[in-house]
Amino acid sequence: MLIVGERLNTSRKAVAAWVTSRDAAAVSAEARRQVEAGADCIDVNAGTALGQEPEALRWLVTVVQGAVEAPLCLDSANPAAIREALSAHRGKALINSITGERARFEGLLPLVKEHGCGVVALCMDEAGLPASAQDAVAKGSRLVERLLSEGVPPSDIYVDPLVRPISVDPVAGPSVLEAIRALKQRFPGVRTICGLTNVSFGLPLRRLLNRAFLVAAMAAGLDAAILDPLDARLMALMRAAEAVLGLDRHCARYLKAYRAGRLGEE
Amino acid sequence: MLIVGERLNTSRKAVAAWVTSRDAAAVSAEARRQVEAGADCIDVNAGTALGQEPEALRWLVTVVQGAVEAPLCLDSANPAAIREALSAHRGKALINSITGERARFEGLLPLVKEHGCGVVALCMDEAGLPASAQDAVAKGSRLVERLLSEGVPPSDIYVDPLVRPISVDPVAGPSVLEAIRALKQRFPGVRTICGLTNVSFGLPLRRLLNRAFLVAAMAAGLDAAILDPLDARLMALMRAAEAVLGLDRHCARYLKAYRAGRLGEE
Repeated sequence: MLIVGERLNTSRKAVAAWVTSRDAAAVSAEARRQVEAGADCIDVNAGTALGQEPEALRWLVTVVQGAVEAPLCLDSANPAAIREALSAHRGKALINSITGERARFEGLLPLVKEHGCGVVALCMDEAGLPASAQDAVAKGSRLVERLLSEGVPPSDIYVDPLVRPISVDPVAGPSVLEAIRALKQRFPGVRTICGLTNVSFGLPLRRLLNRAFLVAAMAAGLDAAILDPLDARLMALMRAAEAVLGLDRHCARYLKAYRAGRLGEE
Repeated sequence: MLIVGERLNTSRKAVAAWVTSRDAAAVSAEARRQVEAGADCIDVNAGTALGQEPEALRWLVTVVQGAVEAPLCLDSANPAAIREALSAHRGKALINSITGERARFEGLLPLVKEHGCGVVALCMDEAGLPASAQDAVAKGSRLVERLLSEGVPPSDIYVDPLVRPISVDPVAGPSVLEAIRALKQRFPGVRTICGLTNVSFGLPLRRLLNRAFLVAAMAAGLDAAILDPLDARLMALMRAAEAVLGLDRHCARYLKAYRAGRLGEE
């Protein structure tokens, strides 16, 4: 599992304040904590820095890459911000995210191709969010086919079926699992990714539901997740799931996390 | 999910002592604790009562059914013990378990048919345990076909793919998930069941691995599990998994468990 740490997002008040005041020490520390907890990639989002997003995102990239070795997930719907962030990024970035919407697709595709980035492809288009598993697969398939036809390698595409709250749609959970299985079957080599938190919106003990959903999605073939790596129980269960799903050779990552005391209690 | 509480098994020293001394109060209390924690069915096993298993199992049935309303899972490879237990059982029992081995099959089948019991069908035969997912499906399919041809209704058959330790076989986990999916596809209406604890044999923090495996198996379509319902974290995650998998209408069981304080912390 590729773990994308989600904490450096200006939708969190503390992070917005750090970005506004250019508090490099606080941002660096948050990046380090996530990598130490097991994040493979760090998401950076400056979406609330209205009018100043490109510069803010570029600053985040420079600071975070000064603190950790991990590649970054450049999180913006704004091609200008992604362009500015890429100009500062070392190594292979992941762009989060492209959609089938014309302006967004045409704005981001040249950057994906020019920089050889990975790209998160959301299963949505001009007509909006997917209404069902079948619709997510249809929207996602069209987008993946366009990216492939533009020469983006399958393994650089991370298709996201978009998770809706089970409190609003009772089949939201199984729909995502069905979409993951269908997209992986249809496009071997293309990866799947999703965020976890939407699934539990409106219900108590959300992190318990998010944990169960992560394991279910992994069992369906999920390759990457955008999550909070400082949720120790979530990360412990993810390591256990990798082991029982045969994704962790000799249970090496599980045993390493155990020896480091990162799996907590039974 | 049908939860079969596994604690009344004489392989546990305390339970063996209760059975030997016919301590009805202790057995009743253990049965009640399991039902209060969410067990739908109580497994009773007197396998260590050598030479006295039929009488001991019958005693367990009488005591447990005097304490709780739940049906029982009569756990023995010995047709004589199952026969004796059934003579005392009220309602519809689940027999645990039949196999493709000739003596066991021929000894138990008449009891299943006569009493209209459910039956756990292990994916094993004269040649032994399954060597792979394909082998489990082959052995399980032959056994299910024989039971169906004898008139046992599909929904009374609980096929168990038999879980091996991931520490011994790296693909033990995914093999079980594959077998569950294949058996459910091949025999619509037939149910699947498994125990959890074997998967984690030989590894640290076994209950963490068992929890991850339960959710993965549920995502693959598992209908029933034999487990320790007093493992509060396991039961909380199972309720969360039912909710995210669309198996808990309006999240009613999840919310009921939450209000009863049975889901613990996030």
